[in-house]
Amino acid sequence: MPPLRTALLQSSGRPGSVAGNLKVLDEAATRAADTGAGLLVCPEMFLTGYAIGDQVPVLAEPADGPGAEAVAEIAVRHGLAVLYGYPERDSGEDGPGRDGERRGESECDGERIYNAAQLIGPDGTRLANYRKTHLFGGFEREWFTPGERPVVQAELAGLRIGIMICYDVEFPENVRSHSLACTDLLLVPTAQMYPFQFVAESVVPVRAFENQMYVAYVNRTGQEGEFEFVGLSCLAGPDGAARARAGRSEELVLGEVDGELLSASRAANPYLRDRRPGLYTSLVRADRS
Amino acid sequence: MPPLRTALLQSSGRPGSVAGNLKVLDEAATRAADTGAGLLVCPEMFLTGYAIGDQVPVLAEPADGPGAEAVAEIAVRHGLAVLYGYPERDSGEDGPGRDGERRGESECDGERIYNAAQLIGPDGTRLANYRKTHLFGGFEREWFTPGERPVVQAELAGLRIGIMICYDVEFPENVRSHSLACTDLLLVPTAQMYPFQFVAESVVPVRAFENQMYVAYVNRTGQEGEFEFVGLSCLAGPDGAARARAGRSEELVLGEVDGELLSASRAANPYLRDRRPGLYTSLVRADRS
Repeated sequence: MPPLRTALLQSSGRPGSVAGNLKVLDEAATRAADTGAGLLVCPEMFLTGYAIGDQVPVLAEPADGPGAEAVAEIAVRHGLAVLYGYPERDSGEDGPGRDGERRGESECDGERIYNAAQLIGPDGTRLANYRKTHLFGGFEREWFTPGERPVVQAELAGLRIGIMICYDVEFPENVRSHSLACTDLLLVPTAQMYPFQFVAESVVPVRAFENQMYVAYVNRTGQEGEFEFVGLSCLAGPDGAARARAGRSEELVLGEVDGELLSASRAANPYLRDRRPGLYTSLVRADRS
Repeated sequence: MPPLRTALLQSSGRPGSVAGNLKVLDEAATRAADTGAGLLVCPEMFLTGYAIGDQVPVLAEPADGPGAEAVAEIAVRHGLAVLYGYPERDSGEDGPGRDGERRGESECDGERIYNAAQLIGPDGTRLANYRKTHLFGGFEREWFTPGERPVVQAELAGLRIGIMICYDVEFPENVRSHSLACTDLLLVPTAQMYPFQFVAESVVPVRAFENQMYVAYVNRTGQEGEFEFVGLSCLAGPDGAARARAGRSEELVLGEVDGELLSASRAANPYLRDRRPGLYTSLVRADRS
């Protein structure tokens, strides 16, 4: 398979304006497709904006809602896959792990809202939908229920694509779970704020290296309500080097995800083979959580 | 407690010359003590040198052997703790996990040799002895048996000190096990080679940040037999910043380990509280190992 050209849309977004954000997406998809990209990745909560406060329940929609339809239309028109973040109103269709779900404060009227990210294929098919498992900060804990499914994947262009969201990637356990499930390219829409730029600069490349995968970390940027996002989106390769790296402005950056390079790197860095799972039992003990 | 001034001895060592390496240690201890250091950390296999080939069984000694006695004498004379790497001949005294031990190729004559690191207190007491659990490369796998105890700790200057060796630190699971066991300062003697300088530059600071601890990574440097070591020893703090960073030459670098800064950083970065152990079960499954 040829490398998958991947476009990272670092954007400030238009909080509360789904139409405005879809317009930004359409423009970015035009530019990405013009360069031959097969995948366009947007930040966390891209569809609605992140700092939407008590509009979360108003703007939330099911995984097959009107936002998904609009994104699918854009994906088909430009012939590329799109990963976008959005607030998901539980539609009752995405069930793995439901029995074990913890109930968040968001559960009014028996309805749950998730901080989700959905991957839509170039033919408009909804390929995968992920619900953030590790919520961050007061805003998210007030409005969202944490997801219960740690590894969500889909196949695209000969690669196994994984999805997580922002704070999830800061826990090495989450990314390791993906590497054990053979994720080749991990998509991480994010809304990373000051003063945590160390995550964008250093943690993300290390995750790619220690797990021998590509990681596309796609951030918001600039001020939005009480939050100041740090930008610095990047596509990190299995050697820990950035294939694409944004600054602090709104920008579209592109990089290649090369399956052959990945195979060679894995052969030279046998972390998964050299693991000793029998020594890691303290990591799954519940008595600290 | 006042901060613990920690000295990192980045050294090429004198392969095969225990006396020569003890002389280097004594000189470094003099300089470290003069600056008020309470702890001096040496590289992996410091006592004998790393590239000693088939001299491993000749130079290996028990944890209470003559090398340990000589290091203890230096520690007492200068009034500081010393962590040093050495090839340990199984003395039968350090038993945790023995029943489950895997047998390496090193086991001839029923005797095992470990790639070990020992911490000796300022009063000459042997505080802790760690056997490398994740062996790297052909040389180590030929001569050493892997250790079976993932977390070895000791108390020093009001801090909980942990020990691991080189390749161990590249596995996020190992360092996480230490943070779950409340390690404040992780000592990592290493023999890190080209082309893996990314580990020294990036992985080590990320380990300190994601686990909210200090990590002292102390490397060999220069050419030794077939190996070229990369130097770049560092003391990384819980914010991911280097408190001390060596270049490529033989040098002694110093930094402070501050328990109060550690407490404040942990309060601001609640990774351990926000973990969800129930989602990480794939990490301990044996079917991949």
